[in-house]
Amino acid sequence: ADMAMALMLSSRRHVVQADRYARAGRWPIDGDYPYTLNVHSTKVGILGMGRIGMEIATRCAAFKMDIFYHQRNKRDDVSYPYYDNLVSMARDSDILIAIIPGGDETRNLVDVKVMEALGPEGLLINVARGTVVDNNALAHCLADGRLGGAAIDVYPDEPNIPPALLEITKNLVLSPHMASGTHYTRNAMGMVLYDNLEALINGKPLLTAVN
Amino acid sequence: ADMAMALMLSSRRHVVQADRYARAGRWPIDGDYPYTLNVHSTKVGILGMGRIGMEIATRCAAFKMDIFYHQRNKRDDVSYPYYDNLVSMARDSDILIAIIPGGDETRNLVDVKVMEALGPEGLLINVARGTVVDNNALAHCLADGRLGGAAIDVYPDEPNIPPALLEITKNLVLSPHMASGTHYTRNAMGMVLYDNLEALINGKPLLTAVN
Repeated sequence: ADMAMALMLSSRRHVVQADRYARAGRWPIDGDYPYTLNVHSTKVGILGMGRIGMEIATRCAAFKMDIFYHQRNKRDDVSYPYYDNLVSMARDSDILIAIIPGGDETRNLVDVKVMEALGPEGLLINVARGTVVDNNALAHCLADGRLGGAAIDVYPDEPNIPPALLEITKNLVLSPHMASGTHYTRNAMGMVLYDNLEALINGKPLLTAVN
Repeated sequence: ADMAMALMLSSRRHVVQADRYARAGRWPIDGDYPYTLNVHSTKVGILGMGRIGMEIATRCAAFKMDIFYHQRNKRDDVSYPYYDNLVSMARDSDILIAIIPGGDETRNLVDVKVMEALGPEGLLINVARGTVVDNNALAHCLADGRLGGAAIDVYPDEPNIPPALLEITKNLVLSPHMASGTHYTRNAMGMVLYDNLEALINGKPLLTAVN
């Protein structure tokens, strides 16, 4: 959930682009960085209101965002407004966060129609699975401005990133599948055991060896 | 407040560095990006609990962070724990966010002692004024690992960024004074009028001309 928030906030406030701008020495020459879009008081649609979706919603509430969600079925135990149609939700959203399971049922669920509904000031965050977003359509929509911006953490063929996405720098932030990649989370997931086993199998040094 | 959060989250989760990593094509070659430090459940010290400091605290609470603050005087109307000593607060903090007024009284308030107290896993965010942080000490502490990381939005001699900071890429995010730079905030501040007047005085085209 924190990586989703990190991507959302940094995309909306152009942290990656601003760091590039500062380091290229452009501030004294080209002047102040253009105003960015805000986070506070915007509308966020969460695609997939599972455990992590709920964690994201709690954080978004602290930014006084309006929160709603879409998935196959409405949840009885959740008070955020439910959309049974993803395009309708995207139309009403400034920001769309995908955190729905992968698989055939959700393949290319975020398609060109959803992106166009999100629109030229809209932001798409994908921390779900790479297959959930039509990345071809994404590259086109970002390039021609039909979609305002995106931050993508997951890809259909990891660790490869679609070349069309790599070309887009102005309004796209890329991260190499890091949404569960903190020491804290990996410990919490018991993944340290898994990582050690994997290292052992691959003949690599153990990560947390006890000598 | 949102820019402070954007810088905090993106620094902690290495969004800027991860985007560079992905775009340099390193993921398939060098493997997964190393685990990062988390935000959730960490301890944040807020230097300056004014209006924006309070907004930051509200947002941090949604990340289940422990929140405390330092400034010259304890506030009676605030329940977050107060430190009368900045070094002590930094010692107890994972993350220190400076949002205190500038001027002679706060010049170089965040000095080498504060940075060392924050430590090798600590993160410093400066969205206050450039003079509040000893940027010389900051460059040294970041370079030799006495301080884990930093994100800096303000500088003593804007729009110039101290060259020593520009050299550090691994654990430093730079932004060109953007903390109030959204359309939303500038409107809320009535700054659009100000910006138009400034443009008029400088003979530039008006930003929001009514023809």
